[in-house]
Amino acid sequence: MDITRQKNYTDWYQEVIKAADMAENSIVRGCMVIKPWGMGVWERLQRLLDDEIKRTGHDNCYFPLFVPVGLFLKEAAHVEGFAKEMALVTHTRLKIVDGQVKLEGQLEEPLVVRPTSETIIAESFAQWIQSYRDLPVLINQWANVVRWELRPRLFMRTTEFLWQEGHTAHATGAEAQAEAMTMLEVYRTFMTEQLGLSLIVGEKPPHERFPGAEHTYSLEAIMQDGKALQAGTSHNLGQGFAKAANIQYQDKEGALQHVHTTSWGTSTRMVGALIMTHADDDGMRLPPAVAPAQVVFVPIIREDADIEPVTAFCEAAAKRLRDQRFQGEAVRVKVDTRDKKAQDKRWDWIKKGVPLVVEVGPRDLAKNELCWIDRLAIAKKNFEPADTFVEKVEERLNAIQSGLKYAADKMLAEHTRSDIKDYAAFREHFKKKADWLGKPGSAGYVRAYWCGEEESLAPLSDLGVTVRNIPFDQPKEPGICVLTGKPAAQQVIFARAY
Amino acid sequence: MDITRQKNYTDWYQEVIKAADMAENSIVRGCMVIKPWGMGVWERLQRLLDDEIKRTGHDNCYFPLFVPVGLFLKEAAHVEGFAKEMALVTHTRLKIVDGQVKLEGQLEEPLVVRPTSETIIAESFAQWIQSYRDLPVLINQWANVVRWELRPRLFMRTTEFLWQEGHTAHATGAEAQAEAMTMLEVYRTFMTEQLGLSLIVGEKPPHERFPGAEHTYSLEAIMQDGKALQAGTSHNLGQGFAKAANIQYQDKEGALQHVHTTSWGTSTRMVGALIMTHADDDGMRLPPAVAPAQVVFVPIIREDADIEPVTAFCEAAAKRLRDQRFQGEAVRVKVDTRDKKAQDKRWDWIKKGVPLVVEVGPRDLAKNELCWIDRLAIAKKNFEPADTFVEKVEERLNAIQSGLKYAADKMLAEHTRSDIKDYAAFREHFKKKADWLGKPGSAGYVRAYWCGEEESLAPLSDLGVTVRNIPFDQPKEPGICVLTGKPAAQQVIFARAY
Repeated sequence: MDITRQKNYTDWYQEVIKAADMAENSIVRGCMVIKPWGMGVWERLQRLLDDEIKRTGHDNCYFPLFVPVGLFLKEAAHVEGFAKEMALVTHTRLKIVDGQVKLEGQLEEPLVVRPTSETIIAESFAQWIQSYRDLPVLINQWANVVRWELRPRLFMRTTEFLWQEGHTAHATGAEAQAEAMTMLEVYRTFMTEQLGLSLIVGEKPPHERFPGAEHTYSLEAIMQDGKALQAGTSHNLGQGFAKAANIQYQDKEGALQHVHTTSWGTSTRMVGALIMTHADDDGMRLPPAVAPAQVVFVPIIREDADIEPVTAFCEAAAKRLRDQRFQGEAVRVKVDTRDKKAQDKRWDWIKKGVPLVVEVGPRDLAKNELCWIDRLAIAKKNFEPADTFVEKVEERLNAIQSGLKYAADKMLAEHTRSDIKDYAAFREHFKKKADWLGKPGSAGYVRAYWCGEEESLAPLSDLGVTVRNIPFDQPKEPGICVLTGKPAAQQVIFARAY
Repeated sequence: MDITRQKNYTDWYQEVIKAADMAENSIVRGCMVIKPWGMGVWERLQRLLDDEIKRTGHDNCYFPLFVPVGLFLKEAAHVEGFAKEMALVTHTRLKIVDGQVKLEGQLEEPLVVRPTSETIIAESFAQWIQSYRDLPVLINQWANVVRWELRPRLFMRTTEFLWQEGHTAHATGAEAQAEAMTMLEVYRTFMTEQLGLSLIVGEKPPHERFPGAEHTYSLEAIMQDGKALQAGTSHNLGQGFAKAANIQYQDKEGALQHVHTTSWGTSTRMVGALIMTHADDDGMRLPPAVAPAQVVFVPIIREDADIEPVTAFCEAAAKRLRDQRFQGEAVRVKVDTRDKKAQDKRWDWIKKGVPLVVEVGPRDLAKNELCWIDRLAIAKKNFEPADTFVEKVEERLNAIQSGLKYAADKMLAEHTRSDIKDYAAFREHFKKKADWLGKPGSAGYVRAYWCGEEESLAPLSDLGVTVRNIPFDQPKEPGICVLTGKPAAQQVIFARAY
């Protein structure tokens, strides 16, 4: 690609999306068009995560897009948290009068296009739940949500985005807490094993909680510019939403109790995280688990030669590959028969991040072999008999899956500083830009003790640094706050973030 | 159920949805909450249809929820068609002043919540398409859409509904026409083979076309009350949208041409069609192809006996059933271990329409057999060894799939009158109510010649009867219009409709 990470990281990100043809900005400000390749990746993510959500006992439902304003007002912290980024529906009809648009049919109560569904789902829970026998209620929905976005960026922040939101209700606080942790672990496993992200799991400090939550847990993935990306969150909502919506159950003794609820979500941001974690200066690199195509064949067409036997060879090999398994599923194979130069086709698929690209020309055919390229080592052309390639495809896809994860883990390990003990060193570190981590002088994560006082973060505003979360794995000893020098019980992750 | 088709067909429909726990009305007027069982059915429909959409060469994309009003205005017929049922977003912020809700951040241009996406997708097509080499563009999206609904009914008509909308662009009118027909056939096959619907496929008369379309084709499924339900449509949009959005390509000779577009869609209405086609007075009956669970085990718990061996027996049989295949997929089996009376559980699953319900008690266990119930013949309890049941499960699911289709076909055949030749007989026929077809004196479809003049339909308004479509299979001879007595080239289907 023309733009490299070294040259301009921000532009490079846009360029990868363009080169891989994954998405583009739409005519509607802040919204995106997800193109087939980007959608293919999202559909893979969806399928894999949905399986896990169901395996852990959750059912999918669908709740309305619209939330009456009055419902939103019931939970005070919640409405405050979202009041400035709402899409509000006020009218139901349109009329053209003298070429001018006139809105008619004004609604008595405006409707909010859901920025999240806690309030509307709580209304259903209040009806569904009467007795302890009705609990737990474990549901999930895949939906679009809208939060007005002033500085949109494809996949990372868009006014409309796609997500899943889980919502559960439990008899006790302990069960709600266990649920929030279970789903956090589902996310962690999915994001590390399938997406190959490298992340730090922990609890958000109080001022970063989801509006209305008692505890918010997050997965903070490190990007190639050292910034954190919050790839998913899980909230123990306590009884706040239950009290606001009056979700009560009769316990075994016949007493009325409010339920304890949780919610947890991940979104199309994960596709942004995939790109910012794995792409390189040649374009996208996809973990095989989420690649819409894992192997693509490019038949080499020479003008004077007959293309028929070449494509037949490719189709035959493709068929045999589809009988192979990767992670228990049929290998996803494509034969690219478009009327386009082989070299351009090869580059199309490299830029799209296909794990294995195979070229077959008349000469290879004569030798009954093929030429394959590993997306993690594109400079090398590997020649071998088709049989061998078919036999080894699972092993190679596994190696690519692991290779991407290895690189991400290395990045996190190499760019998390745990040795910064005072404010001067802290400032010095974060004076460095957020820039490609391959470039010396870029800042990553800092893991350090923090006293927990929100006011102590004010001086960091010029650096753009925030507390990402309080990691679960903590040293046994308390320490000294890196910002204030006061005693501090816990370490936190400081970083710039998307 | 308390309410039967005979007693009150409309209430019966609501009762089935409640008994099967598929969906409910939401607090937001006109919108529904799709509950786990209803969502499970929709997800099955989605998966099967999505496979076919992809198999025929289409890719999934995602386009914005919002359409700027100005874009809508570009295609005159289109804006007129939807102007009265739009959800319009006008503001972006909310403020509470003295307990009153104040809207702020008024948008310069209101946004329409998509009632359909032709206009917004056309904008993308205009950018994507430059040359004949870029054609055809074949895409689909699964999305929610909003059309204000004054008389909502769960699944049949709701303000917000879920659907898929295919959108394609082609170099020639012939190709667009072929595409519209291909997708109509995909729908027909899917709806008859998987959903077991019985329907008549044909073209809509001009006044019933989709706003802006040149040709609209529909699939009109007959419901148990003799009404038609438009289960899907496919449109050849000609060059109207291409001209409005300026979607042009350079042909092989270098000349600029407008593309020809199509669109085609099906929605959660199909779930309504499933219910109104297959349910009976005991609740839902699901074709195995779309049943979230095809076999459910109910272990019979006796207070004095040990339940462990019974559930173990069920789990073991369930495991073996999952190794069996129906339509190439693993059989979907559930063991219901809820703390509830066995009889109540059995009825829960019968009402939900599970094809095969299996009961196992300690006595069955001793004999190493089980008791199974076929949802199409619930009065009969069948006893047999577990081995036999496992071996025969595919055959039995096939029989249920065919049985439901057979009943639907019978209904269509028995309630389509082709012998009505004049207006008096026509009126006489349709004076009959739309009511359960098992009840003598209910009207179904009438297939008769029609002159094609829209004005001739005015006298039918008191009957609530409309032209559903012009079936593809036509007699060779022209005839006499049943309404006007004028010469008529074609037969049409007259019916009441949802």
